[in-house]
Amino acid sequence: MGAPLNVAMIGYEFMGRAHSNAWRQVPHFFQLPRPPVMQVVCGRSEGRVKEAAGRLGWREYATSWEEVVARDDIDVVDICTPGDSHKEIAIAAARAGKAVLCEKPLANDLADAIGMHEAAEAAGVVHMVCHNYRRAPAVALARAWISEGRIGDIRHYRGTYLQDWIVDPDFPRVWRLEKARAGSGALGDIASHSIDLARHLVGEIAEVSGLLETFIPERPLEGGGGRGPVDVDDAALALLRFENGAIGSVEGSRFAPGRKNYNRFEINGSRGSIAFDLERMNELEIYTEDGPDSGFRTVLVTDAAHPYVDAWWPPGHILGYEHTFVHTLVDFLRGVASGTSPAPSFADGVHNQRVLDAIERSSASRRWESV
Amino acid sequence: MGAPLNVAMIGYEFMGRAHSNAWRQVPHFFQLPRPPVMQVVCGRSEGRVKEAAGRLGWREYATSWEEVVARDDIDVVDICTPGDSHKEIAIAAARAGKAVLCEKPLANDLADAIGMHEAAEAAGVVHMVCHNYRRAPAVALARAWISEGRIGDIRHYRGTYLQDWIVDPDFPRVWRLEKARAGSGALGDIASHSIDLARHLVGEIAEVSGLLETFIPERPLEGGGGRGPVDVDDAALALLRFENGAIGSVEGSRFAPGRKNYNRFEINGSRGSIAFDLERMNELEIYTEDGPDSGFRTVLVTDAAHPYVDAWWPPGHILGYEHTFVHTLVDFLRGVASGTSPAPSFADGVHNQRVLDAIERSSASRRWESV
Amino acid sequence: MGAPLNVAMIGYEFMGRAHSNAWRQVPHFFQLPRPPVMQVVCGRSEGRVKEAAGRLGWREYATSWEEVVARDDIDVVDICTPGDSHKEIAIAAARAGKAVLCEKPLANDLADAIGMHEAAEAAGVVHMVCHNYRRAPAVALARAWISEGRIGDIRHYRGTYLQDWIVDPDFPRVWRLEKARAGSGALGDIASHSIDLARHLVGEIAEVSGLLETFIPERPLEGGGGRGPVDVDDAALALLRFENGAIGSVEGSRFAPGRKNYNRFEINGSRGSIAFDLERMNELEIYTEDGPDSGFRTVLVTDAAHPYVDAWWPPGHILGYEHTFVHTLVDFLRGVASGTSPAPSFADGVHNQRVLDAIERSSASRRWESV
Amino acid sequence: MGAPLNVAMIGYEFMGRAHSNAWRQVPHFFQLPRPPVMQVVCGRSEGRVKEAAGRLGWREYATSWEEVVARDDIDVVDICTPGDSHKEIAIAAARAGKAVLCEKPLANDLADAIGMHEAAEAAGVVHMVCHNYRRAPAVALARAWISEGRIGDIRHYRGTYLQDWIVDPDFPRVWRLEKARAGSGALGDIASHSIDLARHLVGEIAEVSGLLETFIPERPLEGGGGRGPVDVDDAALALLRFENGAIGSVEGSRFAPGRKNYNRFEINGSRGSIAFDLERMNELEIYTEDGPDSGFRTVLVTDAAHPYVDAWWPPGHILGYEHTFVHTLVDFLRGVASGTSPAPSFADGVHNQRVLDAIERSSASRRWESV
Repeated sequence: MGAPLNVAMIGYEFMGRAHSNAWRQVPHFFQLPRPPVMQVVCGRSEGRVKEAAGRLGWREYATSWEEVVARDDIDVVDICTPGDSHKEIAIAAARAGKAVLCEKPLANDLADAIGMHEAAEAAGVVHMVCHNYRRAPAVALARAWISEGRIGDIRHYRGTYLQDWIVDPDFPRVWRLEKARAGSGALGDIASHSIDLARHLVGEIAEVSGLLETFIPERPLEGGGGRGPVDVDDAALALLRFENGAIGSVEGSRFAPGRKNYNRFEINGSRGSIAFDLERMNELEIYTEDGPDSGFRTVLVTDAAHPYVDAWWPPGHILGYEHTFVHTLVDFLRGVASGTSPAPSFADGVHNQRVLDAIERSSASRRWESV
Repeated sequence: MGAPLNVAMIGYEFMGRAHSNAWRQVPHFFQLPRPPVMQVVCGRSEGRVKEAAGRLGWREYATSWEEVVARDDIDVVDICTPGDSHKEIAIAAARAGKAVLCEKPLANDLADAIGMHEAAEAAGVVHMVCHNYRRAPAVALARAWISEGRIGDIRHYRGTYLQDWIVDPDFPRVWRLEKARAGSGALGDIASHSIDLARHLVGEIAEVSGLLETFIPERPLEGGGGRGPVDVDDAALALLRFENGAIGSVEGSRFAPGRKNYNRFEINGSRGSIAFDLERMNELEIYTEDGPDSGFRTVLVTDAAHPYVDAWWPPGHILGYEHTFVHTLVDFLRGVASGTSPAPSFADGVHNQRVLDAIERSSASRRWESV
Repeated sequence: MGAPLNVAMIGYEFMGRAHSNAWRQVPHFFQLPRPPVMQVVCGRSEGRVKEAAGRLGWREYATSWEEVVARDDIDVVDICTPGDSHKEIAIAAARAGKAVLCEKPLANDLADAIGMHEAAEAAGVVHMVCHNYRRAPAVALARAWISEGRIGDIRHYRGTYLQDWIVDPDFPRVWRLEKARAGSGALGDIASHSIDLARHLVGEIAEVSGLLETFIPERPLEGGGGRGPVDVDDAALALLRFENGAIGSVEGSRFAPGRKNYNRFEINGSRGSIAFDLERMNELEIYTEDGPDSGFRTVLVTDAAHPYVDAWWPPGHILGYEHTFVHTLVDFLRGVASGTSPAPSFADGVHNQRVLDAIERSSASRRWESV
Repeated sequence: MGAPLNVAMIGYEFMGRAHSNAWRQVPHFFQLPRPPVMQVVCGRSEGRVKEAAGRLGWREYATSWEEVVARDDIDVVDICTPGDSHKEIAIAAARAGKAVLCEKPLANDLADAIGMHEAAEAAGVVHMVCHNYRRAPAVALARAWISEGRIGDIRHYRGTYLQDWIVDPDFPRVWRLEKARAGSGALGDIASHSIDLARHLVGEIAEVSGLLETFIPERPLEGGGGRGPVDVDDAALALLRFENGAIGSVEGSRFAPGRKNYNRFEINGSRGSIAFDLERMNELEIYTEDGPDSGFRTVLVTDAAHPYVDAWWPPGHILGYEHTFVHTLVDFLRGVASGTSPAPSFADGVHNQRVLDAIERSSASRRWESV
């Protein structure tokens, strides 16, 4: 095993908790070329970041990300902050020669994303966006089936990511509902996952017809003091044309009661179909045409032969949400060791942002827009 | 029970078989104001229509629909032919004072549909389009829940009608793949059902962004003799804006391997959600928000309290596809007796055609189009 | 087509309705050697049987089954009465030379069943028990898979038939809860179906360990007047050993809230598994071992290649409960024409009764009992 | 937070890996009265245990469990070895005053289990059996519903634990197939889980009728050298009578192709039903009778209000198999801190063993046996 890699993580909320867990777990389950060391976690509130460091297992805490990314002893910077700070941190880290892992969406707008990608490439560092769902074993299995041609040429992609946590009009205007912080609403937060999976599984998107809608234009401010505007989308839909001739649709909404984390896709090819639902993330539904007794079969993706699974438990012993981050780190760490940016790299982040941008433009222009 | 109603059916293929079954069955299960008499079936080929009359249970057969719809002893004309002949038959029947039931889509284009509606209204006859899926008990139950406000204000409609019977590029160019006969492809054949359900369950559609695609542009001609062009859509997608503020999407495709008759919708309201799949047409999935132990429940729509069900079997004894036609006839026959056109009337057929027309226009203009 | 077969049906309640529907429907969908004529329906109450004859489509009605089964013009007697009258009617019909179709269970006890079988054999008439679920297309498909060895040697059978219609302790003591009328409770009414399927799909049962339980020992009498004893089982369970070495279990209960007509089985063989649920009777779940991407697949048993289906609708257009009776009549009528008793014949009815009898004996003796 | 608890784990194979993971994870997600320290892991092979210590995160390794359990600095002994060594280790640990957590089944026979329980009680130490599935959040939710009377009085329990890993007759005779090592086959390994859940959710079992079967009596020896006898059961079934009047069944089999870790139960009460399947362990199916629109609902048991869940992720972000061990440790550690043995304690282990023993006796005597 090579020299340890010292990791700094910026941000420690929901995503920071998920990443920390993955940093802790990955060396116990996977062979890694260089073992990660959870060196320092960084946040603005000293009290809170100190508590988080202890709870999450980081050796140190810090309050200045600028100082952290400049430290000589840090090899990797893991960015878990809201999207409005991604650019500044990532560019500084890249310029300081650090490998960079960045939460999705890469940035809050396309220009920022391009800037980040260019900076990382210019600095020659390894970079990756954390679209963790690519590494759910069932999604990785879907990818293998498709790339091996087992469902033929792709005709249809149907991506739907539904949640219901802001259905109540009295749910407060949290940061994810502010354009200045989050960039967009359901579009960047969840539809971006469906778009990443579309690109991963089907190919590049050529053009889109988009629709953004905000159902609840005002919400109570956090901390009281009246109501404030919601200036992001509550729901985002788009029709898609792929470069390879496939067509499709993508939707993200936080207004689907009963759908908690329903990241679903169905793909139809010329010889078969594949469907996935994150709420049942250990299962993949596969249909291949083989006479009248064909049918969608539910593969329990927990066999040692399945992607990433042999590190874990016997067949039928399911994995959870958090494992997708562990798998992301495995590939990121191997990329760092070999000097190769794994997909989805910042280039993928830029591509994803181009699609988001085209959907926003199309929603405004009310016509198809090229990506 | 009132005087019998003498019925003439024009056409005797798939739809004619389904309608004949319903005409035979309806008096045995439902109380009807006037009992139908299966008087005459009409088709162009004397040999074939004679055989069909015997097999399907019609008293007579005929080869001239013009003569049939003019007969004094006929009260009801049931049109089961391909769409290109609907207009002529329906208008003649209406002018002859017959009640008219017409298969969907009402016509192959909007102008024809309007002409049919105007003629039927001018003649003062009862008219109805056979969008039979409205009368699957589970769909009727969904309608009841929505109209009673039990899932609140509707935000999302997702209609998807998938089949796979022409995935094979060597499947022949049957009449449903010819624009001159069928008017359109998946759009008019199956997406029109999803649009009818959208209007039935959510409300009027204001504008659309449509996409039509033909994956296999040429197919073997029936009867041999080379290949001919497919000039209808293999798949049709559209984004929707409803007049009441809901948004949605609709899709019809015959290129979804493994989906045999997958007429599915999901509707999200401000207080709950409802989902349906025709392949499991006795079930309705309902979610209502009621604390953390809420969940989508699967209602087996086979209780005597459910729409149409008390005429049939005990709870848990499921109905089939064909029952939706029986239920349609129940309401049609009650409408005939009372002189009231039941929904979906020809007016609904026109509305449906307006949506189909807007999708075609939008697919060509590449921008949103008003309905 | 041969000479018509004149049918007499005894009884006109639930089963009589289901059988009448099948008699009406069968000639419209299937090629039959001799067409059935619905000649006469028989019941004790003249007013009610007269009404039923009109509603159900019988030419005549009668009130004396003795006279009906003796009529020279009657070819087939279809027995739809409660179990306590099966023996007398069936033996009289057989002796009069009629083909006999009898509802299940064949009799209320083993001795009666044997007597019926002997009488029918002595008379040389065609006989059949109406275990209609054998002829759900999915069950027939399961049978084909098993008999072709496609899931290997059978190891396990798990049959579970659950309903919930008497969960309420104030539900009245209907005839099905009286031993004198019904013979037994869940055992003969529903577990007998699971046992028939076990024999049909796996093979003969050698010995059983049974458990009968009555949860609600008294219920309100119908028509008021206090409460009366329930002397049949509310639930029946048994462990099974088959002659071929398979083991299994069977259960019938009317005390399973939410299970309306949940007639389910799962069969595990040395190479695969099959599962079925009557509430989704158009589906069959099949597993065959074929590497790590294997999984249970859901076959929508609606293809023209599937048993009985080509007579009906295109793929994905589902059938209902009532179709199982139509299919039973198809095979019964072909048997009558050829002079061969189709399975399940009265011999199967006797075998079934032997298993029921062994379960009752075992429940009393508290030890395994041979069948 | 109190003084740390030093933990020694004996055994490091599959169960040792699962326990180690839980020991590592528990302090990062749960508030604990005394933090555990992963002090020492013990195994017979020095090379292998040394490697395991590093990989699994233990500070030290050792090869003599006798020395380990006697160490003054050890507070807790966690037993992850095969069943034949449980007794000796547990009794020694208890006598040394250690809190003891022991994998299930508690022992390979009833006498040993009783001895272990008596020794632990005599020593006054905290003891617990690791029936981890009790602490799947969905199972804990089922328990809450039942204990609050929300599905009424329990009538039926149906427990089925199916796997398929030894279907191939050439799968070798591993230690789990040797009576001397494992005590029994499917009975103690997996049916014991179903029995534990029966006791947890329904109540004490009064008597059983059991059936044990070995389909493949000889298998290849591990390491080559011919075949050896399989002297444990391949499948175990039993009918159950509970003390509270409920009836039920339990089954464990390793011969169910396609069932990987299918630990399923369904419970029917007088007012509702509950069903669970470990392969979808984040879901609980609940039915409560509430009129004709009732139906089984699928609760995604991932809400912060659900048992153990608030420590983890937002709604819809599912947990995996391994989390059940973390939850077990939470309650074990709280029990150690408070001096109270949490359920399932060794007393529960004894009760469980009594049921296993009765099933074995019944299988031999071929009659019902009291527990």
